[in-house]
Amino acid sequence: MSSNNRNMNYKLKQSWYNKNQNGRGKNHKTGKRGSSAYVPKPIKKPPVKISFLGGLNEIGKNITLIECDGDMIIVDCGMAFPDGDMLGVDLVIPDFSYIEQNVDKVRGIVLTHGHEDHIGGLPFLLSKVNVPLYGTPLTLGLVENKLREHSLINKVKLNTVNAGSTIHLGCMDIKFIHVNHSIPDSVAFAIKTPGGTVVHTGDFKIDCTPISGDTIDLSSFAKVGDEGVLALLAESTNADRAGYTRTEQMVSESLDTLFKKAEKYRIIIATFASNVNRVQQIINCAEKHGRKVAFSGRSMVNYMDVASKLGYLELPKNILIDIDALKKYPPEQIVLVTTGSQGEPMSALSRMAYSDHRKVMVGEGDFIIISANPIPGNEKTVGNVVDELLKRGCKVIYESMYDVHVSGHACQEELKLMHRLVRPKYFIPVHGEQKHLRKHVELAEHLGMERKNIFIGDIGKTVEVCDDYMKEVASVPAGKVFVDGLGVGDVGSIVLRDRKHLGQDGLIIIVASLDVYDGHVISGPDIVSRGFVYVRESEGLLDEVRKLALSILEDCAEKNIHEWGIIKNRLREEISKLISQKTRRSPMILPILQEV
Amino acid sequence: MSSNNRNMNYKLKQSWYNKNQNGRGKNHKTGKRGSSAYVPKPIKKPPVKISFLGGLNEIGKNITLIECDGDMIIVDCGMAFPDGDMLGVDLVIPDFSYIEQNVDKVRGIVLTHGHEDHIGGLPFLLSKVNVPLYGTPLTLGLVENKLREHSLINKVKLNTVNAGSTIHLGCMDIKFIHVNHSIPDSVAFAIKTPGGTVVHTGDFKIDCTPISGDTIDLSSFAKVGDEGVLALLAESTNADRAGYTRTEQMVSESLDTLFKKAEKYRIIIATFASNVNRVQQIINCAEKHGRKVAFSGRSMVNYMDVASKLGYLELPKNILIDIDALKKYPPEQIVLVTTGSQGEPMSALSRMAYSDHRKVMVGEGDFIIISANPIPGNEKTVGNVVDELLKRGCKVIYESMYDVHVSGHACQEELKLMHRLVRPKYFIPVHGEQKHLRKHVELAEHLGMERKNIFIGDIGKTVEVCDDYMKEVASVPAGKVFVDGLGVGDVGSIVLRDRKHLGQDGLIIIVASLDVYDGHVISGPDIVSRGFVYVRESEGLLDEVRKLALSILEDCAEKNIHEWGIIKNRLREEISKLISQKTRRSPMILPILQEV
Repeated sequence: MSSNNRNMNYKLKQSWYNKNQNGRGKNHKTGKRGSSAYVPKPIKKPPVKISFLGGLNEIGKNITLIECDGDMIIVDCGMAFPDGDMLGVDLVIPDFSYIEQNVDKVRGIVLTHGHEDHIGGLPFLLSKVNVPLYGTPLTLGLVENKLREHSLINKVKLNTVNAGSTIHLGCMDIKFIHVNHSIPDSVAFAIKTPGGTVVHTGDFKIDCTPISGDTIDLSSFAKVGDEGVLALLAESTNADRAGYTRTEQMVSESLDTLFKKAEKYRIIIATFASNVNRVQQIINCAEKHGRKVAFSGRSMVNYMDVASKLGYLELPKNILIDIDALKKYPPEQIVLVTTGSQGEPMSALSRMAYSDHRKVMVGEGDFIIISANPIPGNEKTVGNVVDELLKRGCKVIYESMYDVHVSGHACQEELKLMHRLVRPKYFIPVHGEQKHLRKHVELAEHLGMERKNIFIGDIGKTVEVCDDYMKEVASVPAGKVFVDGLGVGDVGSIVLRDRKHLGQDGLIIIVASLDVYDGHVISGPDIVSRGFVYVRESEGLLDEVRKLALSILEDCAEKNIHEWGIIKNRLREEISKLISQKTRRSPMILPILQEV
Repeated sequence: MSSNNRNMNYKLKQSWYNKNQNGRGKNHKTGKRGSSAYVPKPIKKPPVKISFLGGLNEIGKNITLIECDGDMIIVDCGMAFPDGDMLGVDLVIPDFSYIEQNVDKVRGIVLTHGHEDHIGGLPFLLSKVNVPLYGTPLTLGLVENKLREHSLINKVKLNTVNAGSTIHLGCMDIKFIHVNHSIPDSVAFAIKTPGGTVVHTGDFKIDCTPISGDTIDLSSFAKVGDEGVLALLAESTNADRAGYTRTEQMVSESLDTLFKKAEKYRIIIATFASNVNRVQQIINCAEKHGRKVAFSGRSMVNYMDVASKLGYLELPKNILIDIDALKKYPPEQIVLVTTGSQGEPMSALSRMAYSDHRKVMVGEGDFIIISANPIPGNEKTVGNVVDELLKRGCKVIYESMYDVHVSGHACQEELKLMHRLVRPKYFIPVHGEQKHLRKHVELAEHLGMERKNIFIGDIGKTVEVCDDYMKEVASVPAGKVFVDGLGVGDVGSIVLRDRKHLGQDGLIIIVASLDVYDGHVISGPDIVSRGFVYVRESEGLLDEVRKLALSILEDCAEKNIHEWGIIKNRLREEISKLISQKTRRSPMILPILQEV
């Protein structure tokens, strides 16, 4: 089929291609094959099944399963950060049970790039199933570190694949296609299956003047498009932004201006630890302005270590100094590159802002640049850190006006280009909340694609695609699994509901020892409260609670009510009512009875 | 003194005015009065003391005290919404103890406008001290509702003052000057004291084509400036935004376009309940397009009730319908105006999004416009509501590209105009976080004001100003008081710390009854946990905790340790250690012992 015909799917209500598909094989009116003309026996292609365990209706924990003819591959395996209502949760990973149930089919995990929302779930999956990994050198370098931390390094097979190469997993050929993004060595995949080709863009932007490496491999996308693409899965992070994402190089000019402006000040720059190219630009600028560079923050040190070992970070001789050596240099000869651009409470920049950093004290001699935009939801914490730094007399550059940050994701014009190059029959927007997915759908429709050829997925949803149709099929088990400390999955909705209740209103415990024979109170009731009221000032109220509890317990004993469920319920209900009347609050009421 | 000279304060290092001040009265070299020439007896002006109980380094709870010659007035008395770490707190009000201590001096409370961050603290202050209130009709109309809810309406004297009038409180003359803002009937104050004139802008913008009422009374500001102003207190909310805030009228055009676009859909518009002019525009647009208007959300209904009664909202005949009558009209004849533009969980729009609204079900027939920008910190909740609405198939307009919202606060060019009109000797930026205050300082310096004539305050800080100097003096008692249910101030840092701990990690309770004579365990220890782990799946761990607790209690009994403080400490420490080893979590450990 010619690329011309594929392209028409975008433009016409009913394309030549669709008509051609319908017309072949069977006579639709009679349901029988025509007898007058020779019709070649149709080769029935197997459908491709695409399932999502994450990355839809959320930002983070991207993971897609692609199955065809009994083989399955996994694209990425990310984690997400908890929402505000997931109290005490450290991170969120996908529910892997569908993979565990189908482990026989799994031929490998292919990784688009080394960001946490694409590789952060790996240790948790690999501790359950042993599956080979395929990724580019930097991606696997970062994965290696992660697996070492989880003592999984000797168990898992890591296969390095360079962009431009094709690997064979079961019935699928997977081409690694170079893309631009905010971490080097990012790729997209063209997955050739017996049922057709599926393109997964991963995260990408189009940078015609990248800091390192090549421009996104447009010609490979074009070639795949020419050969015919069944389905495109394209990221949607910036689908609501018009225009073009600016080149990473733009940051260089701004940094240069700001370094001049900083004059005699010490420069501190906060950015994403994974943004190797950004750090490269900072280092280049530091060299130009005769400043040494130190790194602060564990993840910054780790990333730079891996990136420089693998040749993704060029370090001019003697430019790096240890953070302990800062004192040996005057402020105007220093650039400190640090984590904390999102105002994360435990990050290096936050510690500096709140005077909690062991090695760096900030003040009037500091010129601080936040080279990142707040991720939605972090605006307030970033704002608080900026305010603290300002209060300490630091100069702080945090506005967008200085162009100290550009996105790593494609805006609308880049997405359109990707659609035009790949020219798929079906389109499934991925990586984004509902609003991003919807915007991406609008964009595809605007390019002429019919709505019926677009699928908006969700976590767990599964879609079957082949030449003749795209249809949603039975969902697979999927969900959010919470990691809290060493526990994976032992914090669920009940625990979270209790945490929320305790956190909002605190608790009141009523303890009493009851006579094992007649149920009368032997000791107590004692009232213990936490997170409810300041006890010293509320003795009267707590005394009332105690009296009420005693009267309930004695009443139950008198009435020969000995079933603890009933007694506890009465305590909970009547004490809740009293507290609500007096305070309009509803602490957790926890009656604890002991028999003596 | 001529206006020309005042203006020079911005321009010259040392103005004529300053020289003139220094030169009069005393000979600075000798410290004695000259004897050769006649020198008039200097009239020593009393200094003006300005204290801040809120509104600095925060958005919200604006309240400023101005004292001179034994008289004090209070400008505004607002509340703030709690930060994310103030768990369970409903709202935050200022600490009023300084006012209580000085109630004899207080001559009145003057109110700039009817927003919660300017009047929301009133019921709490007025339940402690009885002070007369002065405000414009709409402001007092809203205050009245509030006082009625708190059963204070008969206690407090409300004095209506129209913009343009001057009132006399103690030694001070206070002129009410009309300004534009996102609620009608807003004013600034020119406060003439024996020590000099202080101008407080309140919240303002300059709208040359307002929806109702006049443009900000520029001429009064100019006149006050001509007469000489000691200190300017100007709001800083938008001090980091370049240019000019657009006119409210701009929204009309956008609404008109969107109403056309909505065609056969039902229109739902969420906006701030207090933005009477915005609602007026919606009503006008509804009338033009032949739609009826219904209100949803308690505060929307209340505000519109007050505004229409007082004549601030013009309602065409028969345009309003009750929310219960929605079903009688086809969707294309309806506009539903609702609260919830900030994604507040209990608001009408959120309830609609989560299918929790008793009267309105939303779906594919709805065209929803969010006519507001998310206040910093609310981006995520607003985004979640938008996503939910999209999932239900609603069309949602939430982007800034449609111009469905303009700010109510002055941007940089408007602030500059205010400075140029008022030409104060001293400048104190108010209403804003540190970054806003700093930006406003930069702006004033850019206009030529010397840094030494600018004061950056904080909650509790007090500054004394007079012709000769501005200096910080002893701070006054101030802080944040938390309101939780009916409790005012009974939730403090300890309760919040416990709530945070409980919310993050949950708790483990160890209960045991001990023999009153020998300390041996008679009953228990029982282990109760909440918000820690899902108990059914963690029985092994909790069993270990029980065994450890028993061994500690028995060990203490053996060793004749009967002091409960010591026993409880051992329980807490050793059980914490066990839990941390096994789970890397740190729940609150609560040992409860009873003697039998």
